[in-house]
Amino acid sequence: MMDSISSSASTIAPRFRCFDPTTSKPPAAKHRPFSVSKDGVVESSPQVADRKIVEGDDGYVLEDVPHLSDYIPDLPIYPNPLQDNPAYSVVKQNFVNEDDTISEKVVVHKDSPRETHFRRAGARQKVYFEADDVRPCIVTCGGLCPGVNTVIREIVYGLHHMYGISSVLGIEGGYSGFYARNTICLTPKVVNDIHKRGGTILGTSREGHITSKIVDSIQDRGINQVYIIGGHGTQTEASVIYEEIRRRGLKVAVVGIPKAIDNDIPVIDKSFGFDTAVEEAQRAISAAHVESESHENGIGIVKLMGRYSGFIAMYATLASRDVDCCLIPESPFYLEGPGGLFQYMERRLKEHGHMVIVISEGAGHELMHSMDETDATGNKLFHDVGLWISQKIKDHFAKQRKMTINLKYIDPTYMICAVRSNASDNVYCSLLAQNAVHGAMAGYTGFTVGPVHGKHAYIPFYRITERHHEVVITDRMWARLLSSTNQPSFMDVKEVTADDTEEKQ
Amino acid sequence: MMDSISSSASTIAPRFRCFDPTTSKPPAAKHRPFSVSKDGVVESSPQVADRKIVEGDDGYVLEDVPHLSDYIPDLPIYPNPLQDNPAYSVVKQNFVNEDDTISEKVVVHKDSPRETHFRRAGARQKVYFEADDVRPCIVTCGGLCPGVNTVIREIVYGLHHMYGISSVLGIEGGYSGFYARNTICLTPKVVNDIHKRGGTILGTSREGHITSKIVDSIQDRGINQVYIIGGHGTQTEASVIYEEIRRRGLKVAVVGIPKAIDNDIPVIDKSFGFDTAVEEAQRAISAAHVESESHENGIGIVKLMGRYSGFIAMYATLASRDVDCCLIPESPFYLEGPGGLFQYMERRLKEHGHMVIVISEGAGHELMHSMDETDATGNKLFHDVGLWISQKIKDHFAKQRKMTINLKYIDPTYMICAVRSNASDNVYCSLLAQNAVHGAMAGYTGFTVGPVHGKHAYIPFYRITERHHEVVITDRMWARLLSSTNQPSFMDVKEVTADDTEEKQ
Amino acid sequence: MMDSISSSASTIAPRFRCFDPTTSKPPAAKHRPFSVSKDGVVESSPQVADRKIVEGDDGYVLEDVPHLSDYIPDLPIYPNPLQDNPAYSVVKQNFVNEDDTISEKVVVHKDSPRETHFRRAGARQKVYFEADDVRPCIVTCGGLCPGVNTVIREIVYGLHHMYGISSVLGIEGGYSGFYARNTICLTPKVVNDIHKRGGTILGTSREGHITSKIVDSIQDRGINQVYIIGGHGTQTEASVIYEEIRRRGLKVAVVGIPKAIDNDIPVIDKSFGFDTAVEEAQRAISAAHVESESHENGIGIVKLMGRYSGFIAMYATLASRDVDCCLIPESPFYLEGPGGLFQYMERRLKEHGHMVIVISEGAGHELMHSMDETDATGNKLFHDVGLWISQKIKDHFAKQRKMTINLKYIDPTYMICAVRSNASDNVYCSLLAQNAVHGAMAGYTGFTVGPVHGKHAYIPFYRITERHHEVVITDRMWARLLSSTNQPSFMDVKEVTADDTEEKQ
Amino acid sequence: MMDSISSSASTIAPRFRCFDPTTSKPPAAKHRPFSVSKDGVVESSPQVADRKIVEGDDGYVLEDVPHLSDYIPDLPIYPNPLQDNPAYSVVKQNFVNEDDTISEKVVVHKDSPRETHFRRAGARQKVYFEADDVRPCIVTCGGLCPGVNTVIREIVYGLHHMYGISSVLGIEGGYSGFYARNTICLTPKVVNDIHKRGGTILGTSREGHITSKIVDSIQDRGINQVYIIGGHGTQTEASVIYEEIRRRGLKVAVVGIPKAIDNDIPVIDKSFGFDTAVEEAQRAISAAHVESESHENGIGIVKLMGRYSGFIAMYATLASRDVDCCLIPESPFYLEGPGGLFQYMERRLKEHGHMVIVISEGAGHELMHSMDETDATGNKLFHDVGLWISQKIKDHFAKQRKMTINLKYIDPTYMICAVRSNASDNVYCSLLAQNAVHGAMAGYTGFTVGPVHGKHAYIPFYRITERHHEVVITDRMWARLLSSTNQPSFMDVKEVTADDTEEKQ
Repeated sequence: MMDSISSSASTIAPRFRCFDPTTSKPPAAKHRPFSVSKDGVVESSPQVADRKIVEGDDGYVLEDVPHLSDYIPDLPIYPNPLQDNPAYSVVKQNFVNEDDTISEKVVVHKDSPRETHFRRAGARQKVYFEADDVRPCIVTCGGLCPGVNTVIREIVYGLHHMYGISSVLGIEGGYSGFYARNTICLTPKVVNDIHKRGGTILGTSREGHITSKIVDSIQDRGINQVYIIGGHGTQTEASVIYEEIRRRGLKVAVVGIPKAIDNDIPVIDKSFGFDTAVEEAQRAISAAHVESESHENGIGIVKLMGRYSGFIAMYATLASRDVDCCLIPESPFYLEGPGGLFQYMERRLKEHGHMVIVISEGAGHELMHSMDETDATGNKLFHDVGLWISQKIKDHFAKQRKMTINLKYIDPTYMICAVRSNASDNVYCSLLAQNAVHGAMAGYTGFTVGPVHGKHAYIPFYRITERHHEVVITDRMWARLLSSTNQPSFMDVKEVTADDTEEKQ
Repeated sequence: MMDSISSSASTIAPRFRCFDPTTSKPPAAKHRPFSVSKDGVVESSPQVADRKIVEGDDGYVLEDVPHLSDYIPDLPIYPNPLQDNPAYSVVKQNFVNEDDTISEKVVVHKDSPRETHFRRAGARQKVYFEADDVRPCIVTCGGLCPGVNTVIREIVYGLHHMYGISSVLGIEGGYSGFYARNTICLTPKVVNDIHKRGGTILGTSREGHITSKIVDSIQDRGINQVYIIGGHGTQTEASVIYEEIRRRGLKVAVVGIPKAIDNDIPVIDKSFGFDTAVEEAQRAISAAHVESESHENGIGIVKLMGRYSGFIAMYATLASRDVDCCLIPESPFYLEGPGGLFQYMERRLKEHGHMVIVISEGAGHELMHSMDETDATGNKLFHDVGLWISQKIKDHFAKQRKMTINLKYIDPTYMICAVRSNASDNVYCSLLAQNAVHGAMAGYTGFTVGPVHGKHAYIPFYRITERHHEVVITDRMWARLLSSTNQPSFMDVKEVTADDTEEKQ
Repeated sequence: MMDSISSSASTIAPRFRCFDPTTSKPPAAKHRPFSVSKDGVVESSPQVADRKIVEGDDGYVLEDVPHLSDYIPDLPIYPNPLQDNPAYSVVKQNFVNEDDTISEKVVVHKDSPRETHFRRAGARQKVYFEADDVRPCIVTCGGLCPGVNTVIREIVYGLHHMYGISSVLGIEGGYSGFYARNTICLTPKVVNDIHKRGGTILGTSREGHITSKIVDSIQDRGINQVYIIGGHGTQTEASVIYEEIRRRGLKVAVVGIPKAIDNDIPVIDKSFGFDTAVEEAQRAISAAHVESESHENGIGIVKLMGRYSGFIAMYATLASRDVDCCLIPESPFYLEGPGGLFQYMERRLKEHGHMVIVISEGAGHELMHSMDETDATGNKLFHDVGLWISQKIKDHFAKQRKMTINLKYIDPTYMICAVRSNASDNVYCSLLAQNAVHGAMAGYTGFTVGPVHGKHAYIPFYRITERHHEVVITDRMWARLLSSTNQPSFMDVKEVTADDTEEKQ
Repeated sequence: MMDSISSSASTIAPRFRCFDPTTSKPPAAKHRPFSVSKDGVVESSPQVADRKIVEGDDGYVLEDVPHLSDYIPDLPIYPNPLQDNPAYSVVKQNFVNEDDTISEKVVVHKDSPRETHFRRAGARQKVYFEADDVRPCIVTCGGLCPGVNTVIREIVYGLHHMYGISSVLGIEGGYSGFYARNTICLTPKVVNDIHKRGGTILGTSREGHITSKIVDSIQDRGINQVYIIGGHGTQTEASVIYEEIRRRGLKVAVVGIPKAIDNDIPVIDKSFGFDTAVEEAQRAISAAHVESESHENGIGIVKLMGRYSGFIAMYATLASRDVDCCLIPESPFYLEGPGGLFQYMERRLKEHGHMVIVISEGAGHELMHSMDETDATGNKLFHDVGLWISQKIKDHFAKQRKMTINLKYIDPTYMICAVRSNASDNVYCSLLAQNAVHGAMAGYTGFTVGPVHGKHAYIPFYRITERHHEVVITDRMWARLLSSTNQPSFMDVKEVTADDTEEKQ
């Protein structure tokens, strides 16, 4: 990781801005020994304490995010340096109005109540950090996703251009890098071109880690802004880190930037990298289409990312129009019998001579496990649903002896995850990063940033982590997909089977 | 193998479903001779009559769209065939609640009033057309834009799969094709693969046309659903066609699908093809960057689409991060003197040795014309701002004799316009098309379809045509751009010039 | 606008040019009932009879190809219609000199003998077929390869534009399609756009087939030019078909167009589709590189096509420069011990922190089978060397417990095979197809066409089928690769192990 | 230029390997003060002296390249370090046989004479430089071309990996950089990723320069291997530099690496970057095709590189198959009258409704100037043949008033030149670079490297610079193009016009 960058990084002559925590004393110690008044924080459970709910008329509710001043009294306040920034001099309303909130609901009736809102993201007139005292760090966790490097770049640039902060600590290799690895120094020069390549220059991992050691490291290194890029598990851990930091009364802003190539983050419009992933998935589907078309009874199977959510599979299918069946985790399916996958495949092959199936990595897991129990093969490769279903289909048609099939299985997962982000995701990542920076500078903490109906908002962690965003198969979007593929809905398994038995057909 | 080719071949032959208006009698004559009650329509001016404003509590306003029943009484109503569609059988709430409206505003204060809403798009429980009587047509106008073929395909598929309508008339070559050309027959098989290529299979034009002859043709051919894909001028004409149809009392739904590669349509989130265009523009910017980097005092200039709106230039700049100056129509600039473009260029070249300028086709038009008057060259090629500014820059540096520059001008316009739509735009176009179809089937007319805060809505024509959507240069997005390029804001032209005069510099 | 669609549609309808062999009498019967003189053909073995060797001075040898007149006496001869073709009117020397031959050897010494030559491909002054009597057919066999559709298109266009032959029979689904399937009619309009997509519009298969039934079908349908696109097995079968046709004394030209995505055809410079495949493989390698770089001890493994020949792996590695180890069938390797793969991997990971391995599908097969015997797992998925080696590597590092690795396996095979051909392959395919047509029209048969040192030649089947073209690992090209990856040569296994034992290390 | 690289370059801590010529004494002075015996060099003119012609039997001729020992006696000889290189340990015949030569002719008759040969490129058993004493430099001149960075990278890597030379001087900004700019230090680390981007990290220019100052700089800096990447003019200058170096008796090897995006270098098979350029040109042609298809009487015009040679236009046309007319410098054409372009266009538009024209930048220059004289517009923009012909076509159809045309002009020049090289060109560039290095190390000088019939050879400068490689329009390849486009041959202008006059239309 980072070999090319670290080399150029290591040579950037005046290293003084990136203090080395192992050899030198962290310069930012002054804000740590605050005598923290913990009232309200310790007594009540953190989960409840976190929920800052503001209510208004007509059912208006604001689910606000925590602020450093919630648990640290008398914090000094500074004017936002953006007010003197020439680039922002043309802006009429430079700063977000403190009262701006984003409505979670846009489909309303004439007389419906107002419901939930979130705090609007953006620069504030007053900030809670002075440039010289800011010690930010960035960590990236979980699998690769197009755009991570752009987010890193834009946090570094945002802190530098907008707030005059000249360098940022990069934590290498995910959470455990806080205590198990050296940090690297991120400056605008180091990150200048990283948005042009996939992956993460910081490295990542899914390994375990110890919250207390992370917070110790944050405290020891004098870090006071923590930018955490990652998915569900990562954001959950971020909220635990935030709790611990709050428990210790530290003036440290903890900011989550939600990453989920499969778009399974709730509340926000779309997670970054998703568009790029759907675009890149078209190659695999197109190849599967060509392969299947060129062989008699050709079957192309494409496995796409999505452990809990079938969004990539669904959007890739809707965008391609060459897919005959899309299988996702949210829509259970079955293989045998009327209304099952095999019956549909037989009909489709008879009519068209070929077909393409797209399957999410998390689709059919229950089925896979239930069948594995009876089969008791114990074949460990069948952890991969793509290989599993390919084998099942081959077995079925071999058994049937009616038609010889030609099955081609394509797993483009890593070719998609590792690709650089497209233009649309690049712009999105810039806004995410800048709004994350604005939030931290304004003293907000324990929050995630993301667009809600096109406007960026600060969202409390619990709203992001409490569930996965999933395809609602009783919704119109899934119906659109069914309509475009002509696949069966696989609903009412028992009823159908029952009916079928009765009808003797 | 060959199935798509041979099949599309074999299916075009029996053209019987697409009646030929020149040789056969239109079968759908029955709905035309309605004795129309024109009350309220003729008396009031159409402009005012169109505006269906519904008001509610707390400032709630619904800007509704016209409906066929507004001017044709006692129209028969039919159940929506979607209710029996297997693909939609899983959908819990198959049809849009008639009360669903989309809020135009999502950034609100705790106590702010509710303001404007639009009618939510989508399938309705009751429709105003029977499948056998529907005679839809599609026309495409204006310049090319990625996604037009996808919209055509999805209207044809939507009418077929959702409402059982087996063929659609394609009007060739834009509006004048209604009366000057034969129609072509669009079936699912004909349009099956057209989303995989750029352009429009129907052809397009910007030529003049005569409204009355268009409506005559609609009437004569028995057309009762008109899908019009085009930009500002096209939508304005669509609203005139709608007025004339209403005046004649015809049971014809007129639906606009807004097309604007430069995203200059107001109200809606984004126009289709825009994402694809910004992505494709990256190639040109990247080439300009490489060219400029490889030559001493290298200057790469890229002209991008945008007569009134600089969105493509702005987003392409924000996505690329290799641009040093972005010039758009909304932000007037000047060349000479302090704070001017030349001064900035000299500084930038001295510091970096090279630079990239992105310019919208509509940028600097006032400047161009004012300078042309003094120059009196009358050179007609200077209608192209890219060629014009390239020449001005060359002249300036030749005059200065301080540095020899190396200017490379790239105009990727047609390479962008002609590209096929990407995955994201493909999905967007599908939704647009399906919602257009749902609206027409439900009897709505005189409307445009498009997403508002992520939810598709029916928007009255006047809201779309009354102005261009433009970059607000006093807004944060433009400040972000200035911050990323470091270019001057070109504001306060007079003051600066005045100062300059005083300083004798 | 719509012209290609509507035109292809309208032109397929009148199928009269493509006689239907099942319902109508083939019009070309007249050339079949030749009373064939079989002397010399039956007596001698076909293998020897085929070899037309012409010798000259200084060791000059021409390995000539068969000609219809070799076994059919008194064939009528016609002037080549190209002489009146306006496109060819500017050509000074329209026709290939009958004496032109291509030297197989271009690296020579001052005094070296002249060695083997091949007959130059190209149009001849005299042809052996009249346009009206030509009944050509095309068949595609084996796996997909970029460019097959271009070859089909250019045979059809070449026959049409150069020789006035208006339609060609397409045999569907490979060799067995001769007798088990209907033919389809290929005209310039049908094939006009097929070079823009991957796969083969004729379909293909690897299934078994019966030579006599193929030749029966050729005879029954009155086919007299057979264009066979396929790899080793296909060309071998083509030579058997040619022998049988010759045995029956039929005036049928049998022409092979060699197809091998992995470039394993001997004699010719390069097989079509190879360039495209190497280009496309870069995506997978690049993804593997990004994945491995972004994880601690990241290992990216990419499997590429090549059962007997490692050319794709070698060229993809040389083009990418991001590969640390390239394993091909021609270079046996071993896993354990000094000089083995594992030792190299451990060192590489320690030094760089990540690595990329490219492996040909045919690499390490002996090793795989020898180890499988001891393991006796019988796991059928281990037919795939990529999965096998991934598992072996995981097992090794799990056992070692020294470092936790992060292995990502990418198999882009079908995504490469199904892609459309690039510009360079398109031009190459055109020349192949046109020269194939020229050869058949000139009465040559039993030959393969392909470039030798940049000039197209007619090559006897036996030279193409007698062996696979393989990477010579004692040649400089492989040394270049070793030099670029720094991988061990895996040579002298025993010696190294012996030494190692002695050294106790 | 080089800002990103130079920054990382400048920071590479231990600079000692790249001696700074302005501040320190060149360490390699020892080879300069050779007392040169100039016999045979001064007396005869350099042009003649250079031609080392070796004759053999049967008309065998070797056009050999100069060698340092030709004019410096008693040069020490060293064993080639490759013999101990592990990567090359597997190679059976590590070194090129000194007698290996490449035949310029591969199409031969049984009894034809042997004609011209070139010295085979590759590593030699003995070298004339010791690693510690080698001071290589690289300079890039002329316009951008895909692959230049790959050549730079592979020279640096080749010198390092094969011969143990740790750093190379980069001359910035073309020839004048030898004396007007600082050098930069190229190490494997610095150039590691440069093949992934277009342009040249060294910068380039077309400016004038002074040979004596270049050679002074070479002498003063102690440079003894000069690698010169550039086209015709650059190679001509390289031969002048070589002559001057020889005149001064310096032990400096001068090596040309021919660069010509338009493939106008004679003798060699193809110049690097050409394949990439033809591929990239497909985008522009495809866009022109879509634009023209989508408009009535749509005309798409694409200008491609090629001042003297139409290879890019010809190959791009042959690869695309969507082009209706290809105009190149080698084939003069005319606009008016029978057989002229306008007549062809009118017919084509009537038949097809749209057309695409590809034009080389150097096509029609005589016509342009002759017409300009009569027109006397003096419009300087008409230096661009694309703009000129677009205007002529518009004027013609405006005058005719028969049909309204829709012309779209695309100039993708810089988007093609600036693109990174594709896989095929990358491999090619590697071989070029390595063979250049082998040649210099072996003491050859005054030569160009390049493939002849697929084998790399050392070619004397005069063969490369004496003429441009051009499309032979009386050759079959051009006939193929005419056949594919159906365009007129524009031959016999006068005759046709004469006939026309007689026939009165």
